[in-house]
Amino acid sequence: MFLWNGELVSEEEIQVSYNDRGYYFGDGVYEVFRIYRGQLFEKQAHMKRLYQSMHLVRIHVPWDEEALAAKLDELAADFGNGDGYLYLQITRGAAPRTHTIPDQIDPVMLGYCEPYASPISQIKQGIPAMTTEDIRWHQCNIKSLNLLPNTLARQQAKEAGAEEAIFIREGMVTEGSASNLFIVTGGVIRTHPADRLILEGITRQVIERIAEEEGIPFENTACSQDELMAADEVFLTSTTREITPVISIDNQPIGSGTPGPVTRQLQEAFNRFKLVFDRKNILSIQ
Amino acid sequence: MFLWNGELVSEEEIQVSYNDRGYYFGDGVYEVFRIYRGQLFEKQAHMKRLYQSMHLVRIHVPWDEEALAAKLDELAADFGNGDGYLYLQITRGAAPRTHTIPDQIDPVMLGYCEPYASPISQIKQGIPAMTTEDIRWHQCNIKSLNLLPNTLARQQAKEAGAEEAIFIREGMVTEGSASNLFIVTGGVIRTHPADRLILEGITRQVIERIAEEEGIPFENTACSQDELMAADEVFLTSTTREITPVISIDNQPIGSGTPGPVTRQLQEAFNRFKLVFDRKNILSIQ
Repeated sequence: MFLWNGELVSEEEIQVSYNDRGYYFGDGVYEVFRIYRGQLFEKQAHMKRLYQSMHLVRIHVPWDEEALAAKLDELAADFGNGDGYLYLQITRGAAPRTHTIPDQIDPVMLGYCEPYASPISQIKQGIPAMTTEDIRWHQCNIKSLNLLPNTLARQQAKEAGAEEAIFIREGMVTEGSASNLFIVTGGVIRTHPADRLILEGITRQVIERIAEEEGIPFENTACSQDELMAADEVFLTSTTREITPVISIDNQPIGSGTPGPVTRQLQEAFNRFKLVFDRKNILSIQ
Repeated sequence: MFLWNGELVSEEEIQVSYNDRGYYFGDGVYEVFRIYRGQLFEKQAHMKRLYQSMHLVRIHVPWDEEALAAKLDELAADFGNGDGYLYLQITRGAAPRTHTIPDQIDPVMLGYCEPYASPISQIKQGIPAMTTEDIRWHQCNIKSLNLLPNTLARQQAKEAGAEEAIFIREGMVTEGSASNLFIVTGGVIRTHPADRLILEGITRQVIERIAEEEGIPFENTACSQDELMAADEVFLTSTTREITPVISIDNQPIGSGTPGPVTRQLQEAFNRFKLVFDRKNILSIQ
């Protein structure tokens, strides 16, 4: 089933208007929720960010957070008990094309679930990445549908034999094309501050909490491209990639060229965090 | 009628997929052609820019320029002999959502005409504008569907009682939210060079030709916000706005606060240019 403007419907009932401002302007926002064993992981954090994105682009949604969250649970329940993700996007709505925002317009909501298994071998063995110039707009904190530079960067990475593109803005590392980036130097984890130049990932928030629990120093400070290449360890996080080691960048090995000890420690802690999530859900079902 | 994937169809036959990458990522490009008396104005220049945009985002279109231009003529013929515009967008196509570009994907083309009359009173009397920070990406030379910052800036202008938002990047004037911007100082016309920070407007190209014919000095050099405010005249151009004087910016009058002599001279020359276009079309019909 699909979530379409607040209702669960079959695929055939989805009718995207060519006048949808999401189609003309990318005038909309989205979220990707991870589903573990049929349950939405870090649901509240995603919901909060979704409403924050809508607030920043001034999309007024007629559904409150609780009502929408309940609909997402329905959609996930329909998906079953497997692992997957829930994609949700909300555009400003459909109206004849004008740059200004129509006074009366109803947002258009699309949601669906897809099966998805964690990329275990990448998470265990790490991935190659490449750097590319960060030419995106200056409000990357909004999870908007203006993703053309992200898709082009990812494609560029793929063609270079890399799994992710790492954005460099004026010599400083911001994030990946669809992930947050972290370096470990001298036992300290560093990542770009959650300002307007990056999207504050939900997994990034989890990492910050886990690092504190594990007693690993964590700094919200940007690093230069040179610091990136000289780091002991590099890893990236996202809802679908979880914690993925980056073992080479631009064909140069990072550290030992294998996943480092701090990255592995975080991965183990993250797996325990997921287990606690699983147990809570099992208890809540019983 | 609508142009949909190379065929003229009725509105009901348009079926936008929720999997269209235009909808997910703004992964597409577009053009707005002006129609005067049923004829596409500066058609070849628009076609050239369209194919340039597609080249830059690597959309491979199965229609060559001539075949597509013929289809646009058909669409315009269906529209009739009035004044209007033709909107055309081409997205990369529909496929399950991934950032990387699918190997096999067919572009999706949407085109239609709308009646539109030149905004005579704005062209004669001028408009108020406002300045706003240019936070867009660094490939504004591509006429892409990633237009969220443009729409938000225009909305901001509207709410401030202004007709257009003028982008300022690091203290320098780039362009309007959907127009190119020109200043006149000491009889010299200046506008931002056609680099990656602006879209090279088709009307901008016409202005450059007209200025040369009229013997008015024309410089492709960016001006600062201070130079903008101190200019003798300011005007903007676009396919739908033609040459529109800007008589105030951020509530401060520009020059005398009325359309200036160089702007009026360009407008008159532009109208003659349109007349020549009209006559050519009449001759070609006879």
